[in-house]
Amino acid sequence: MSEPDGFDRFARKWLPLLEAEMRSVLAPRDAVVAQHYQMMHYHMGWVDEAFQPGVFDTGKRIRPLLCLMACAAVGGDPATALPAAAAVEILHNFSLIHDDIEDGDETRRHRPTVWKRWGMPQAINAGDGMFALAFAALLGSSARGVADSAVLAALARFTTCCVALTEGQHLDLRFEQRETVAVADYLRMIEGKTASLVAASLSIGALLGGAEAKTDDALYRFGRHIGLAFQIRDDILGIWGDPALTGKAAGNDILRRKKSLPLLYALEEPTVGQMLTDRMSKPMNESDLPEILDLLAEANARSFTEEQVRSLHQQGLAALTDALGPSALRSPLGVLADDLLRRQA
Amino acid sequence: MSEPDGFDRFARKWLPLLEAEMRSVLAPRDAVVAQHYQMMHYHMGWVDEAFQPGVFDTGKRIRPLLCLMACAAVGGDPATALPAAAAVEILHNFSLIHDDIEDGDETRRHRPTVWKRWGMPQAINAGDGMFALAFAALLGSSARGVADSAVLAALARFTTCCVALTEGQHLDLRFEQRETVAVADYLRMIEGKTASLVAASLSIGALLGGAEAKTDDALYRFGRHIGLAFQIRDDILGIWGDPALTGKAAGNDILRRKKSLPLLYALEEPTVGQMLTDRMSKPMNESDLPEILDLLAEANARSFTEEQVRSLHQQGLAALTDALGPSALRSPLGVLADDLLRRQA
Repeated sequence: MSEPDGFDRFARKWLPLLEAEMRSVLAPRDAVVAQHYQMMHYHMGWVDEAFQPGVFDTGKRIRPLLCLMACAAVGGDPATALPAAAAVEILHNFSLIHDDIEDGDETRRHRPTVWKRWGMPQAINAGDGMFALAFAALLGSSARGVADSAVLAALARFTTCCVALTEGQHLDLRFEQRETVAVADYLRMIEGKTASLVAASLSIGALLGGAEAKTDDALYRFGRHIGLAFQIRDDILGIWGDPALTGKAAGNDILRRKKSLPLLYALEEPTVGQMLTDRMSKPMNESDLPEILDLLAEANARSFTEEQVRSLHQQGLAALTDALGPSALRSPLGVLADDLLRRQA
Repeated sequence: MSEPDGFDRFARKWLPLLEAEMRSVLAPRDAVVAQHYQMMHYHMGWVDEAFQPGVFDTGKRIRPLLCLMACAAVGGDPATALPAAAAVEILHNFSLIHDDIEDGDETRRHRPTVWKRWGMPQAINAGDGMFALAFAALLGSSARGVADSAVLAALARFTTCCVALTEGQHLDLRFEQRETVAVADYLRMIEGKTASLVAASLSIGALLGGAEAKTDDALYRFGRHIGLAFQIRDDILGIWGDPALTGKAAGNDILRRKKSLPLLYALEEPTVGQMLTDRMSKPMNESDLPEILDLLAEANARSFTEEQVRSLHQQGLAALTDALGPSALRSPLGVLADDLLRRQA
């Protein structure tokens, strides 16, 4: 799997099997409650608003691919990790359904969100159903011949990650109420919301592939670092991304006052911090962007943030090398890490 | 434990240990996210709205007591089942936090609900946190010396129950939109919302106490039957309960148009069904109650419903006898089943 196209070949082989696994886990228990499951199918991108089958944007399925690749990388058969891969993707999608409600977002992947289409009460409950079914998926590992002790170790990692997700979301919701947020608190938030599930996906795949604790821990660190780097890269694109590629207006995150690392760093910076704070406390529109981007430039916010991404990426690759040796840098895991951080959208 | 006061003595001994177990599971991971956990503590009845410790209504902790008693009844040490008992009670409370949001209920146990006090987004997320921590609690069984296979069997029962809870809530929310609901569909709903967790609590306690599959299955059936009977008894009290004891106005559930078994049965009844449907489709106030109660009486709705409770109770006691022999009828489990069904409030 060290050839350059290893990642694509891996994804082409395993993504259809992953979808089948998830469809099996999310199949209705009986006809009376079919709609409960059909709302989940809609969110997963399998059916339209009338519950008719179709092909819709499903997201990239990055987390389950990481899980399956980690299993393969430690010498396991990825088929063993399919239930776990389904579990991490179902968990991720549960969290999106609830985040959309909590944030009041009306569209996701160019379609109405579940709460917008079927109302808030049913959407909360459909999310809860997916949360439970994520655990059901992971428990399915036993039927694939995984030893009880490994299933329990995977469940422990998974559960810790679920708790961390809610802690991250708690902070995110609280931060929305504030004028500013310390950089350290922001990093704690994205650690919970993003990095913990990326790290858990890798760690669980490794556990199910039979990795030793040392390898598993190193892959967890790899995931944590690239998860953080991925989120911070997203922050950079949200301010300086090419609108033609991101599909969002230039400076989008600034005008939305979204708390992201470049902005929070600049707000803490002694020379321009106070000016920026004052400027952002007033109404803003597109014509104010050049002035604010100048202040960010004066604070070196972009170079600071890009340096964070580079550093986290390097630490991630060092952890990957610890786990699997230097050849892992050219493996699908290393290729995916590079791709995630070079993306322009 | 066959003396008449066995239940009270059991509860006095184990409830404080249960509370300690739950406080340990729901302890904040660090100070930054303390408020996430403090909302849970509020809901559990441990702190006031300013997060100061106090003594508040916690609910009766019936489910965890059933779990601990089942463990004892099959010859296990209830201490082994404390993590599981904490898990079922935390799960129950998670579901209440979300139900309150979905139903728009502003008070619970005479205090503002979590969403009313801290807003819907944080309340959804605090519920999600408790959901995850319920699994964390159950995984703690390993540290009490429970074999991996038994922990996994308990997790499987627990997860199935979590899915059933969301199926029951799905139906409950859908039924609110309808004029009437078939009795069979109603029973499917309360099976998911109420009976599944009562049954799982008993079954999991038995599994952790080392019960054989046959005993475990019989205790599951016992729980399912008394869970259904408990809910239907609640329906009777909601219409014919003594307001001085229930704290609710007479005929409360009728005026709220709450779908409950006596009403749904009468609506299906050939002689008065149509008259009752017509009557309830018009505005109602207290002065209309006698007329509606007469229609229910003509349909024999109360005697039908009381017969259902009696029959379910009998089936439950038969299952209890299957599980543990006839002496179990005088054990704390049998006493609790009787008490639940004789209650006036």
